[in-house]
Amino acid sequence: MYLIGVLLLLLTASSAHAQNPDLIALANKFFKPLPDVIPAPPDNPTTPEKVALGKMLYYETRLSKGDEVSCSTCHNLSTGGVDNLPTSFGHLAQRGGRNAPTVLNAGLQIAQFWDGRAPSLEEQAKGPILNPVEMAMPSRDLAIQRLYYIPEYKDRFKKAFPEDKEPIIYDNIARAIASFERTLLTPSRFDKFLKGDAAALTANEKKGLELVIKTGCVTCHNGVGAGGGMYQKFGIYGHYEGSDDPGRFNVTHDEKDKFVFKVPMWRNVTRTAPYFNNGSVWDLKEAIRIMAKIQLNKELTNDEVDRIADFLHSLEGNPPQAAMTLPVLPASTPSTPPPDFTK
Amino acid sequence: MYLIGVLLLLLTASSAHAQNPDLIALANKFFKPLPDVIPAPPDNPTTPEKVALGKMLYYETRLSKGDEVSCSTCHNLSTGGVDNLPTSFGHLAQRGGRNAPTVLNAGLQIAQFWDGRAPSLEEQAKGPILNPVEMAMPSRDLAIQRLYYIPEYKDRFKKAFPEDKEPIIYDNIARAIASFERTLLTPSRFDKFLKGDAAALTANEKKGLELVIKTGCVTCHNGVGAGGGMYQKFGIYGHYEGSDDPGRFNVTHDEKDKFVFKVPMWRNVTRTAPYFNNGSVWDLKEAIRIMAKIQLNKELTNDEVDRIADFLHSLEGNPPQAAMTLPVLPASTPSTPPPDFTK
Repeated sequence: MYLIGVLLLLLTASSAHAQNPDLIALANKFFKPLPDVIPAPPDNPTTPEKVALGKMLYYETRLSKGDEVSCSTCHNLSTGGVDNLPTSFGHLAQRGGRNAPTVLNAGLQIAQFWDGRAPSLEEQAKGPILNPVEMAMPSRDLAIQRLYYIPEYKDRFKKAFPEDKEPIIYDNIARAIASFERTLLTPSRFDKFLKGDAAALTANEKKGLELVIKTGCVTCHNGVGAGGGMYQKFGIYGHYEGSDDPGRFNVTHDEKDKFVFKVPMWRNVTRTAPYFNNGSVWDLKEAIRIMAKIQLNKELTNDEVDRIADFLHSLEGNPPQAAMTLPVLPASTPSTPPPDFTK
Repeated sequence: MYLIGVLLLLLTASSAHAQNPDLIALANKFFKPLPDVIPAPPDNPTTPEKVALGKMLYYETRLSKGDEVSCSTCHNLSTGGVDNLPTSFGHLAQRGGRNAPTVLNAGLQIAQFWDGRAPSLEEQAKGPILNPVEMAMPSRDLAIQRLYYIPEYKDRFKKAFPEDKEPIIYDNIARAIASFERTLLTPSRFDKFLKGDAAALTANEKKGLELVIKTGCVTCHNGVGAGGGMYQKFGIYGHYEGSDDPGRFNVTHDEKDKFVFKVPMWRNVTRTAPYFNNGSVWDLKEAIRIMAKIQLNKELTNDEVDRIADFLHSLEGNPPQAAMTLPVLPASTPSTPPPDFTK
């Protein structure tokens, strides 16, 4: 009902000649600027000690079987929080089944992974470490052992989890990583625009913004992430031939969740090619065209596609400097279990 | 002659009770503190533009065939400038033949690679990009093409090499990377000690310093890198059974270069396990014991090994903050050649 009201409003307000204050007001009906912090769950409040430890663990290849894969391998902060590969390389160059989603602003979403199978960043972080084609750890225990005999980790876990008698536990590894990931907010020019700075977007970007509203993209790509807030069927007007991934059906086993995925965020989408759940499309403009066709049954002109791509560039932003500074990781000790290069 | 004079001096000066000023003076006979900058070759003067571009290229997986390996993959600044693996993983998880040497302070050495086959950082940087088991680029041309259609690289190469009509050339990729690498100096407590701060080392570290002098380790591990200044046979008193690598012989084809390698630097050696040209030894203390035995024919006591290991910790240092800050890499364009996942 609310959306229909807004769409009626839109019929009056939006046009190729919408005035800036109108467009800002209209945009605020669909989108929200980035918050200053991502709220943490009650059982894992963000602290500087956890963030610092989490950053170390984010780069910690010793959390992988062969000491060769870390969170950062697939979620590279230099490249939009992804690896720019169709699917990622894990232990011994095994390939995963889905395109790595961005870690940037990920904590703003309703859930994690393409199929939403993890309700929180904490739950998400526990997955890839044990996934046999990703970091491939044979057990939680080995992950703990890899850190346990390193004095600096002993000390840092103690400081990050001062109430725990034995702080180096698998759940705390995930908690620290999640705390670091909550710092990965990327303020953009579009946020400035939403907050009232009409000059933050170019004329072409504003045209693109009007188009994503008028075309209906904002039905799904909305809110603080411009996506990440709901699940939707991929291929409402015809199946997308590039993928047979049943998506969220694998989580719920509900027929109506077949080919349903979490709507990806638009934030930094210009940096996260290739696109879609299987990374099958390299060109952002082709992705825009396909989405309009199979989700909204609309054929966009080349000019419309160009303007929408222009607009999406206004959603680019970088994580804070502190997050972009590499940690110095402590050396292993003779008691640290060595890497295992078997599959 | 000079060394004999110094060793005579040592007989008087060095003992378990050497006074601090004596030990500082003695240490300065063998070692040199880190310079403020690493001198650049005349044809590649260091500039801020080259350093910034070089940092981007250092993290650029698009310089590898499968868009999955960068300089940083094997020479990780978070972990002593290495990957802490016996041998590195390259394209499609292929393994190299030798342990990755540290990039930290690498420009201080007489030459690059274990066998010294590259005379400069510039020449070194050109190797792994084209090595079929490392970054596996099939041609210099593809490396150039991967960058050529990205407007930000066009602009940055132009600014870094303003006199070149076509600045995006293979040699300039290497020049920029080398310029960045020249910033990777890691000042340590030992440098403070050499400059006169007796309190910079602990009592045990000073004992270790006396031991490396007395035992003769400093015959090879000396100068500004505490190594990196000469070639030596690995296994002077008996062949090291862990390796049949002919070393520098492969470069010179001179029989007397069989099993000869560049002496590795001690700087950050505490962070760069596993040790030796094939990464066969994980424990620093075992490496110390083996080296004393096969290079100097000396059996060290456990206590002596412990003190030497203590001393080596005083050579730990971190690259400057600017080098530790990750670059933001520009997105590919539809004209950028995509990754190739074939061998």
